[in-house]
Amino acid sequence: MTYCVGLRIDSGLVFMSDTRTNAGIDSISTFRKMHVWEDPGERVIVLLTAGNLATTQAVVSLLDERSKSIADRVPTLLETPSMYQTARLVGNTVKEVISSHADAGQKADSYFNASFILGGQIKGTPPRLFQIYPEGNFIECSEDTPFFQIGETKYGKPIIIRAYDRAMSFAETAKLLIVSFDSTLKSNLSVGLPLDLMFYEKDTMRVGFKKRIGIDDPYYRTVSDGWSNALKNAFKSLPDFPET
Amino acid sequence: MTYCVGLRIDSGLVFMSDTRTNAGIDSISTFRKMHVWEDPGERVIVLLTAGNLATTQAVVSLLDERSKSIADRVPTLLETPSMYQTARLVGNTVKEVISSHADAGQKADSYFNASFILGGQIKGTPPRLFQIYPEGNFIECSEDTPFFQIGETKYGKPIIIRAYDRAMSFAETAKLLIVSFDSTLKSNLSVGLPLDLMFYEKDTMRVGFKKRIGIDDPYYRTVSDGWSNALKNAFKSLPDFPET
Repeated sequence: MTYCVGLRIDSGLVFMSDTRTNAGIDSISTFRKMHVWEDPGERVIVLLTAGNLATTQAVVSLLDERSKSIADRVPTLLETPSMYQTARLVGNTVKEVISSHADAGQKADSYFNASFILGGQIKGTPPRLFQIYPEGNFIECSEDTPFFQIGETKYGKPIIIRAYDRAMSFAETAKLLIVSFDSTLKSNLSVGLPLDLMFYEKDTMRVGFKKRIGIDDPYYRTVSDGWSNALKNAFKSLPDFPET
Repeated sequence: MTYCVGLRIDSGLVFMSDTRTNAGIDSISTFRKMHVWEDPGERVIVLLTAGNLATTQAVVSLLDERSKSIADRVPTLLETPSMYQTARLVGNTVKEVISSHADAGQKADSYFNASFILGGQIKGTPPRLFQIYPEGNFIECSEDTPFFQIGETKYGKPIIIRAYDRAMSFAETAKLLIVSFDSTLKSNLSVGLPLDLMFYEKDTMRVGFKKRIGIDDPYYRTVSDGWSNALKNAFKSLPDFPET
């Protein structure tokens, strides 16, 4: 499984993804699910991936190769005129990869499906955030729903719903995401450390803060342990049920 | 959908269930999912139901009729010699109902599946808690996993994992369940108020505290509003992410 979140705040976009993949419970590996393309000062594109690893790797490789070899199909990920066109390009690539495996060759027991969160900014346009479906279509985040989750989304959702505020700083948002991921990690073994965290600051067109957070990360440990205690204290602060 | 929890504490068993059923998002109704059989001083049996409503109602009706008409198959729910035999009886009834619909007549688009939490105590034996699967087999809760959830289980699980303690009082446990249900209600429209709450106090062989909790319940409102604030404060109490 997987857990990825892309979140919009006033000051930019924040992304977090886990790195665990599994083919059955007895075959667990670590793979990066956060992919970044940057043309400094011009554009930053971030893609988070969930689902079939062969599919997501093929999509990322195709997008990547096409951005390097201009002889191949244009426009590439570094040349699309808008984030909307970027989402279309990714969506079409997803559709192409899935149909090429699903329609021919040996049938697999499971589907080749994959989902994506795409975010970024192209100079002269605002930062945008999309969720892309296996069918290649996509939706954009709005004022009402300023974040997307893919993969194992449920355990970590209640805290985001309750604590998110668009005026949050990056440091607060990173804390929120770590709490949300920690709840998910504690509930589903197929989501695992390390985590990739990235902050894109609006209008910079450059990769901002980027970090891999492992089991030894002292801040992660502080939040993980602290959140358990803070939750217990929050719980104690409420009045007990009146048995009348 | 549905959300039901059965939980064991040192002083007894606590049960909570929602009451919303839906056939598609445009057909929503209220049905009780907590069913109680009592032979005061001798036994208390509680059954929580999730899944296909026709299946769960048929199971409950069959169990109910057989406990009233002794001419029908014995032993009935009020006569089984142990909670283990009670779980077998319920499991067999589930299997019977599902197979009678699944193997004959018009095929439905969806399955007739249903899941159950069974708890209670029979005089002379300890209180026990089981989860029963659509196949009719079942598992019993243990020291390590002292609770069962059925239905929409994920949103409300992290707080139970973190705050549960077997030495909790009923009043604390009821608070924990209301917090867990409130997180689920806020995330999934197909889980809805009112909630049914019941406490069975160990070795009493009588229905203990029992209440239906609606939208107007002042304690529910206090916890629901208070938990949002308590969570936000807990979140604020943790240090922000260090951007270095």
